[in-house]
Amino acid sequence: MKAVCLLSGGLDSATCLAHARRAGFDCYALSFDYGQRHRIELEAARRVAAALGAADHRIAKIDLRVFGHSALTDEIDVPKGRDEAAMNSGIPITYVPARNTIFLSFALAWAEVLEANDIYIGVNALDYSGYPDCRPEFIQAFEQLGNLATKSAVEGRTRIRIRAPLIELSKAEIVLLGLELNVPFELTHSCYDPDASGRPCGACDSCVLRAKGFREAGIADPACA
Amino acid sequence: MKAVCLLSGGLDSATCLAHARRAGFDCYALSFDYGQRHRIELEAARRVAAALGAADHRIAKIDLRVFGHSALTDEIDVPKGRDEAAMNSGIPITYVPARNTIFLSFALAWAEVLEANDIYIGVNALDYSGYPDCRPEFIQAFEQLGNLATKSAVEGRTRIRIRAPLIELSKAEIVLLGLELNVPFELTHSCYDPDASGRPCGACDSCVLRAKGFREAGIADPACA
Repeated sequence: MKAVCLLSGGLDSATCLAHARRAGFDCYALSFDYGQRHRIELEAARRVAAALGAADHRIAKIDLRVFGHSALTDEIDVPKGRDEAAMNSGIPITYVPARNTIFLSFALAWAEVLEANDIYIGVNALDYSGYPDCRPEFIQAFEQLGNLATKSAVEGRTRIRIRAPLIELSKAEIVLLGLELNVPFELTHSCYDPDASGRPCGACDSCVLRAKGFREAGIADPACA
Repeated sequence: MKAVCLLSGGLDSATCLAHARRAGFDCYALSFDYGQRHRIELEAARRVAAALGAADHRIAKIDLRVFGHSALTDEIDVPKGRDEAAMNSGIPITYVPARNTIFLSFALAWAEVLEANDIYIGVNALDYSGYPDCRPEFIQAFEQLGNLATKSAVEGRTRIRIRAPLIELSKAEIVLLGLELNVPFELTHSCYDPDASGRPCGACDSCVLRAKGFREAGIADPACA
């Protein structure tokens, strides 16, 4: 059984990949080089895919900078040192327009080529309440679309399922799940704005959420060792 | 009023763009450099966008060859000299997995940046009965998705509409509509497998359908003059 697994190289997508592996899938990991300022995450994705025994790992090069308008791809500063209240007040500038729609579209293309039914995505509705494309209704709508969009689904050879096993979990619960699944946390990368040597800034939303997750789970983050 | 208009440089998308212009939209034309063997269509798209007065035209570079598996991106031969019965018997090898899903995802991203409600796509369900992502139910599902996927839609600032004005037209009807809208047919390019100088092969499905459309419309194709 094959599954396409979206893999950014962060904590969530690594845990999601480990979840798919435990469910018995041969995992085809898919990452994107989309002009992100934190491209070091692609190195993390390579290491995580290898460590978790992905059957294949591809990096699709797509240029999201053609439209601009996000701190992750533009020369807009990544916000730092925000507390949870600030993070939850509206959609952050680090949101990339339609990013998960684009990522899932590519995953769908690869699923069709592989004749895979299952697509894993590590979205999380709780800690990313500001991102519309991390919500269950978005995931359901994409699943519906996927079953109308491809030759293999229309011909009845596949039945697309978008699996988002982390969608209702808190960051601490994701950490605990990852621990149980032996996710190599030390290989993952979450920071939106690492320094030149790849060290996390410790202050962007992603670093703050990760630190909170490990703290609440009561374990040390090995990536910060 | 802004609209994002998918523009391949072919007859259908050019007519679709002209339709959007007549409806009063400022048109933001979007083409893709996706490793297609008929990249000459991008030159056609540039000329068509200029001739029809698009407000902007961007070409997004995305690599669909990362998954392979289509005669349009692979080194598989493009089928030639097929009659309509052959074309309508199943989905052709020139089908690119999830292509319209991917193209619409990028259009959605740009629509969000522009705060545009409308996305035009020149799909046609009749002459491309073999392509699942040219059917009305696919278009409707994408519209639903679009309204769940973006920050601007969720915040109520936009209401995504996927407009496919050609979807129920025959190729001859598209030619007649294009004529009425003063589409510069001579600038458009439809062939899947042009020679090195860009001349259409005259024998691929796209050339055959185009010739049939002009013949049934009773007018000469100025691109073949």
